[in-house]
Amino acid sequence: MRRQHKTEKLSAVRKRLFVSVLSDVLDGMGYRDQAMAPAIRPLDDTLVLLGRARTGLYRDVYEVPIDRNPYELEIALIDDLKPGEVAVLACGASGRIAPWGELLSTASRARGAAGCVTDGLTRDIRAIRAMKFPVFHGGIGPLDSKGRGEVAAIDVPVECAGVRVEPGDLVFGDADGVVVIPRRIEEKALALSFAKVKGEGRTRAELRRGAKLGDVFKRHGIL
Amino acid sequence: MRRQHKTEKLSAVRKRLFVSVLSDVLDGMGYRDQAMAPAIRPLDDTLVLLGRARTGLYRDVYEVPIDRNPYELEIALIDDLKPGEVAVLACGASGRIAPWGELLSTASRARGAAGCVTDGLTRDIRAIRAMKFPVFHGGIGPLDSKGRGEVAAIDVPVECAGVRVEPGDLVFGDADGVVVIPRRIEEKALALSFAKVKGEGRTRAELRRGAKLGDVFKRHGIL
Amino acid sequence: MRRQHKTEKLSAVRKRLFVSVLSDVLDGMGYRDQAMAPAIRPLDDTLVLLGRARTGLYRDVYEVPIDRNPYELEIALIDDLKPGEVAVLACGASGRIAPWGELLSTASRARGAAGCVTDGLTRDIRAIRAMKFPVFHGGIGPLDSKGRGEVAAIDVPVECAGVRVEPGDLVFGDADGVVVIPRRIEEKALALSFAKVKGEGRTRAELRRGAKLGDVFKRHGIL
Amino acid sequence: MRRQHKTEKLSAVRKRLFVSVLSDVLDGMGYRDQAMAPAIRPLDDTLVLLGRARTGLYRDVYEVPIDRNPYELEIALIDDLKPGEVAVLACGASGRIAPWGELLSTASRARGAAGCVTDGLTRDIRAIRAMKFPVFHGGIGPLDSKGRGEVAAIDVPVECAGVRVEPGDLVFGDADGVVVIPRRIEEKALALSFAKVKGEGRTRAELRRGAKLGDVFKRHGIL
Amino acid sequence: MRRQHKTEKLSAVRKRLFVSVLSDVLDGMGYRDQAMAPAIRPLDDTLVLLGRARTGLYRDVYEVPIDRNPYELEIALIDDLKPGEVAVLACGASGRIAPWGELLSTASRARGAAGCVTDGLTRDIRAIRAMKFPVFHGGIGPLDSKGRGEVAAIDVPVECAGVRVEPGDLVFGDADGVVVIPRRIEEKALALSFAKVKGEGRTRAELRRGAKLGDVFKRHGIL
Amino acid sequence: MRRQHKTEKLSAVRKRLFVSVLSDVLDGMGYRDQAMAPAIRPLDDTLVLLGRARTGLYRDVYEVPIDRNPYELEIALIDDLKPGEVAVLACGASGRIAPWGELLSTASRARGAAGCVTDGLTRDIRAIRAMKFPVFHGGIGPLDSKGRGEVAAIDVPVECAGVRVEPGDLVFGDADGVVVIPRRIEEKALALSFAKVKGEGRTRAELRRGAKLGDVFKRHGIL
Repeated sequence: MRRQHKTEKLSAVRKRLFVSVLSDVLDGMGYRDQAMAPAIRPLDDTLVLLGRARTGLYRDVYEVPIDRNPYELEIALIDDLKPGEVAVLACGASGRIAPWGELLSTASRARGAAGCVTDGLTRDIRAIRAMKFPVFHGGIGPLDSKGRGEVAAIDVPVECAGVRVEPGDLVFGDADGVVVIPRRIEEKALALSFAKVKGEGRTRAELRRGAKLGDVFKRHGIL
Repeated sequence: MRRQHKTEKLSAVRKRLFVSVLSDVLDGMGYRDQAMAPAIRPLDDTLVLLGRARTGLYRDVYEVPIDRNPYELEIALIDDLKPGEVAVLACGASGRIAPWGELLSTASRARGAAGCVTDGLTRDIRAIRAMKFPVFHGGIGPLDSKGRGEVAAIDVPVECAGVRVEPGDLVFGDADGVVVIPRRIEEKALALSFAKVKGEGRTRAELRRGAKLGDVFKRHGIL
Repeated sequence: MRRQHKTEKLSAVRKRLFVSVLSDVLDGMGYRDQAMAPAIRPLDDTLVLLGRARTGLYRDVYEVPIDRNPYELEIALIDDLKPGEVAVLACGASGRIAPWGELLSTASRARGAAGCVTDGLTRDIRAIRAMKFPVFHGGIGPLDSKGRGEVAAIDVPVECAGVRVEPGDLVFGDADGVVVIPRRIEEKALALSFAKVKGEGRTRAELRRGAKLGDVFKRHGIL
Repeated sequence: MRRQHKTEKLSAVRKRLFVSVLSDVLDGMGYRDQAMAPAIRPLDDTLVLLGRARTGLYRDVYEVPIDRNPYELEIALIDDLKPGEVAVLACGASGRIAPWGELLSTASRARGAAGCVTDGLTRDIRAIRAMKFPVFHGGIGPLDSKGRGEVAAIDVPVECAGVRVEPGDLVFGDADGVVVIPRRIEEKALALSFAKVKGEGRTRAELRRGAKLGDVFKRHGIL
Repeated sequence: MRRQHKTEKLSAVRKRLFVSVLSDVLDGMGYRDQAMAPAIRPLDDTLVLLGRARTGLYRDVYEVPIDRNPYELEIALIDDLKPGEVAVLACGASGRIAPWGELLSTASRARGAAGCVTDGLTRDIRAIRAMKFPVFHGGIGPLDSKGRGEVAAIDVPVECAGVRVEPGDLVFGDADGVVVIPRRIEEKALALSFAKVKGEGRTRAELRRGAKLGDVFKRHGIL
Repeated sequence: MRRQHKTEKLSAVRKRLFVSVLSDVLDGMGYRDQAMAPAIRPLDDTLVLLGRARTGLYRDVYEVPIDRNPYELEIALIDDLKPGEVAVLACGASGRIAPWGELLSTASRARGAAGCVTDGLTRDIRAIRAMKFPVFHGGIGPLDSKGRGEVAAIDVPVECAGVRVEPGDLVFGDADGVVVIPRRIEEKALALSFAKVKGEGRTRAELRRGAKLGDVFKRHGIL
């Protein structure tokens, strides 16, 4: 997997961009299904999640295997995380699986991973919050995945909370939610976003001074 | 639109009443569908929302118009907000639309508006929280309404989160949720609520001293 | 109802165990439906809920009775709460009923009750939070149960948020959710949990030092 | 309960009116919540259901009682059905209960009852169809109510599939669904419906001859 | 709107193709969201629906207008239907609206229209079935749209039962459901479908003679 | 897999028993989760499904594999079906997958299989109905599983429409739905069902003659 964007570029994204700006820009480029469903929330909404997707695709199971390690692929994914990568765990519609918790957070952080997003559940939330590790999740609950779900494939395309995620896509989460920026349009999407963020500053200042929305919109075309 | 209740009266509502008290009183008057669904939550549950409804009724759309401004009615509504008014944005059942964000909050506050309630989504939540502008919403997400939803009508009756809201109705929200007080019964509902709040003080004091609920209920008929 | 576990034992549970540990242990014992659905959340996620279940089973109603007290069984349940007991209020699937609020919290605390869990709604949440009374709920909303729901039976088996709860079962809630420990397996489940919590300490320490999940799992079999 | 409408009148309703006509008329009278949800379907859509409501309100239970007859009120309701009455069984939102089957159909028919409508499930459907007994239901499934649901009250107001039904209300079902005609507006609603049905005949004839909808609507105001 | 496909071509589609074949072919061409949700069912599953989409986009409303005709655009759409066209009525997620019935069926048939598909409800179903007019619907119910929904736009892109439909797209429904064939890929999709249908004949014959699926799949690559 | 029940025994089940009777008997034995959800319906409700479960467990996928046969396990399952076996295909909660159609029906019938039950969708329904092959399904739709779902395991425990099914369990479906009879209690459950069916004959006869339900229930204890 290439890692073409310099660290400094992602650092600027983290400091100056917002998920809502990226979402608007992706919309404008015709990529209108890039924002995860509002059910996905951050454990700590002061943390930003930013990094490249490493995907795990779960499936439901109905027995605890006795002759093999049910966590095999999950462990392989986490142990292979590189600095700046984001574990994207797609658990499907059943809502039965809580794949994430304190131990995986600890292991991921030790590898330098940037965080996790899952449409499944998470647990050990007080410990994870104390670690300041960014986790965006589909709910909170204590149920372990063992005997309920297993990773069926890693590093494959998945759908997570309504968005298709390919390995290497840029995942960006903040208090407003999570957007996924497909690799092939990343350069352009980020450039447009940096430009848009400047424009919004002007708009905001005028509105604060009491300008009419109608007038501001006519002048800047931004809402 | 008449504005018969003096500012001081609404100020007393804000200080001394609670949404749960109003809800009980409206129930007792036979108005039993005045509380919005529990999915509607405040962005900041220390803020109170109180004001007269100005309604916007959204509809789903599936294309970005090229020959007209899709925000036209939305802008008209916000630019016409009067001090103390509440934007009530009814987005319907699809859950696709995020009509509210920082710029509309800024513009509304500049007009003196009291806040916003929507069964759609909201975004830019950290900025809105920093402004202490009361927003009650049906979820958090970055997706702009452009190409997904448009205001089809303003200042019409709407249904928002299960409650019928007519323009001018009093909208009251706190940490417990949102109730809508129809204009024609507002005087009576508020008067009964001020009375009930006194009664609950007595009940609470007796319960704290260890009185049995059964005895307290017999004495005061309040639970 | 027997109360065989000494106070000191429950105090150790409160200090040293976690809901997620209990959940894993119950899973391992073959009790795989003991965690309430993730919709059940604490009003204050710094508080632990621990105590024996006293159950109330609600049913939907569609009129306010005029010739009897609709709260009769609810009052009977609360007024009979013993120190350390937890009110478990099963409201069913309609989501119409908000059975819990400040007055019941006040009355329950005065009896020494440990808290409340309900799959219904709760209200007066700022007052309850100020009391530091543990309430785990299925949502927040102002609607009183009068004319919408009534307690049909108390001290019977119920299903609350997907878990069967029998009177006297141990109810344990923290930031991760709520598990119910059936009476007959309580001794064993707690003993296994105290053991597991020690093992996780070792695992966590090794992961923090950068050990691979695969190696740690091979050594300790815990994930 | 009064039975003021002569048998001949109901017989004319059955022969000449349709549920969709009644629904429009009730709408026009401002009674806009009188049609049950589309999930309610007839077992046999060639049969018409028409009669006065006798209501049974179920609640969920989680144990089979050992010291009393769980069917007591259900039996009381069925054994008291009078000719032309319709059993309206409100089972609530859980969808767990299948209250109706062949034996209750047989017993009800023996009493002269007109049929049954329930938002719960029905079973023994081939036998019931063979009897030509009108049953409108919320689904088909074999699960008996014992240990899952019990009748908590009979002859009380209920809500069935979204419609409030009071004992004695006229219940009317055909292939298009079920409407409930409140007692106090029955006379007027039926009179208006007989009139509307005549008007539609003219409209239909003109449309068949190729008239434009716009012209027909201008002439008759019916669509 | 061009009408390039000769009538004879569509007649061959009707006789020799199936919705499931088209669905597979569209999948293979990378158009994987062309089948409407399974909630959409035919009123009469012996009838085939085939024709070009004429779209109507409904929005929810909460009052009956007094100063204008709420059916205006709906009437305009129906009165403008050309032979072979299919009314596609997108009613959105609320499920409140029943836009279709006997009168619109009669008027549409008089214009030579091919049928109707809606994610809303339909009514007057016995009359429509008697007419043998193909209607694919999202449910059956008597509630008229007046005061609940209005056509907000016609001949615009819509989403109906999960599928984007543009005016002029080919709509094809049979007992298995409904697929939408975008205009620009219609030629190719139909050609591939005629080819696939031949291949399936061979596969079926071999399977009937007891061939193993594995062998047949190896030979023909069709399942 | 043992096949201890003689063919004649299953033939008697088919002729003399009903799903609703089995359901009651299983309830009475404490097996209260054996009836599939009412969403599961027969394609042809005059056909009975009876046989031993052969399970296939699907998982969602998001790409069409290019280097392997995605149907491999599905084909293996069907090609290994023995006379009297029932394909039980558990597709999970997403509802995206339509695993069953005419070709699999043809291949299964050629092997002597008894039918299929799936919580997924089925297609080619007119052809399957013409074959009189019993298929119980969770919906009708044309979407093939390729690139959406794959069989992840066969002959494992699965959950289908809310019921745990183990390979070899007896699956019984008729117009009322589907029950699963666990292998270890099959003998007893069938014996009790044959007895119960006799008792119901008496009950029915008395009710037809106009006996009160209350009296009949007192005499026979059956409802």
